[in-house]
Amino acid sequence: MSPMERRIRESFARQDYMATIGAELTSVAPGAVEIRLVVRPGLLQQHQFVHAGVVSAIADSAAGYAALSLLDEGQDVLTAEFKINLLAPAQGEHLVARSRVIRSGKRLSVCAADVFGVTGGKEACVATLLGTIAHRDA
Amino acid sequence: MSPMERRIRESFARQDYMATIGAELTSVAPGAVEIRLVVRPGLLQQHQFVHAGVVSAIADSAAGYAALSLLDEGQDVLTAEFKINLLAPAQGEHLVARSRVIRSGKRLSVCAADVFGVTGGKEACVATLLGTIAHRDA
Amino acid sequence: MSPMERRIRESFARQDYMATIGAELTSVAPGAVEIRLVVRPGLLQQHQFVHAGVVSAIADSAAGYAALSLLDEGQDVLTAEFKINLLAPAQGEHLVARSRVIRSGKRLSVCAADVFGVTGGKEACVATLLGTIAHRDA
Amino acid sequence: MSPMERRIRESFARQDYMATIGAELTSVAPGAVEIRLVVRPGLLQQHQFVHAGVVSAIADSAAGYAALSLLDEGQDVLTAEFKINLLAPAQGEHLVARSRVIRSGKRLSVCAADVFGVTGGKEACVATLLGTIAHRDA
Repeated sequence: MSPMERRIRESFARQDYMATIGAELTSVAPGAVEIRLVVRPGLLQQHQFVHAGVVSAIADSAAGYAALSLLDEGQDVLTAEFKINLLAPAQGEHLVARSRVIRSGKRLSVCAADVFGVTGGKEACVATLLGTIAHRDA
Repeated sequence: MSPMERRIRESFARQDYMATIGAELTSVAPGAVEIRLVVRPGLLQQHQFVHAGVVSAIADSAAGYAALSLLDEGQDVLTAEFKINLLAPAQGEHLVARSRVIRSGKRLSVCAADVFGVTGGKEACVATLLGTIAHRDA
Repeated sequence: MSPMERRIRESFARQDYMATIGAELTSVAPGAVEIRLVVRPGLLQQHQFVHAGVVSAIADSAAGYAALSLLDEGQDVLTAEFKINLLAPAQGEHLVARSRVIRSGKRLSVCAADVFGVTGGKEACVATLLGTIAHRDA
Repeated sequence: MSPMERRIRESFARQDYMATIGAELTSVAPGAVEIRLVVRPGLLQQHQFVHAGVVSAIADSAAGYAALSLLDEGQDVLTAEFKINLLAPAQGEHLVARSRVIRSGKRLSVCAADVFGVTGGKEACVATLLGTIAHRDA
């Protein structure tokens, strides 16, 4: 495991909320991170789809860690803002959020993330996020 | 309790995720809703602030119900998209999300919500959301 | 020229503002549109880069026409909202906006557009847009 | 005129694009700026309303200058991103954009702006913007 991946996995492990919703960090590569979440009753909204807040949480975390994966060791990240379009009801056996860095600047990164609902191995995109991540000294 | 408030409270009660994070619907008025959340360990990110996903969840729910509060009984709402700016670390004894309807159209509502961290009765704005809510037949 | 392309070219020709800034519709395909703009003094901001409003205008127009390209003849589009990240100073001999449809629903389309600054044949991405387009009867 | 107002008026005067569309800086106060634009044919889209790019341009400029109005003399601003909701067709004798600073941080400001269409002295809100402005040394 690279020092970068170790750093990101340790940060993820300190996020109690990721454990609360049952999110797992399934892949870490330079500029691209994947987070996976098993769909279960406690995460749903009134129509029995996964709540937009949960979808946003894994998309935002994936975006932030993608930004972090391209920074030097002494730096940390903080989401300044994001916009998310909810494209379809968030459902399936599990959700997968996949992020990518669009621009890694000196003080800001711009990242995107897509969230997919997975049923029987078939993926359907349920949300897309575009956000701005601020860099700061760790 | 007005039929509108009852309708919204029943919908909120069906959101399992709101119970998972401990969010409460504290006020419902035409075009303005308040949701309150006690801050606790399971909701935090790696810096021990409330996760952006939780902040987004209560802001989005408050925005959606504000839109719903102005619609006829046969209609329901679905968040099409939102953008949220995280203004300060989300901390305090509890968080309060307060929403308002900016425009209630025929098919879409535009809503805003602010989230405040409350400590010792003092409020600090930690996030602001601007979103688009689609209407549909219930 | 397909009826769809003709419809879009006629609509574009009725946009006086596109003529004011000198924007040209350079490509129309199902779900993907390209708009080109020669950079000139009257379009600049205080640092002599193209104004964010001009960058937004061609990105938004490209997004809206991409949505329209997938709709039936009796329908028209209206931008409900967009978010744009300005990634780098907008400069070059000309700018090119390229759009794509992410989801074409019954009442809403979600589209993305990237804007590139082009200098000596080399392209640099200067902005990325994510927006929601409402459908309506023409 | 305060040094802050002079600085902002000089910067506005260097924006050739503001002259191209005929925008005027009508009010500058700490954290709040107003820009006014007479509606004329060259600014319209295919339905004869003011183009979203023009609406965005004055809203974004008003937001950026509101951020700048609270910074020290050696600093300048650059829009990192904005999101705009188009609430109603942009029409009237003129448009007015009014901005406010939501948070003025060390490196980033978060600003909002509303755009109104004015007809016979009556104002109607046609758009609302929420954006992030980056600070940098001038």
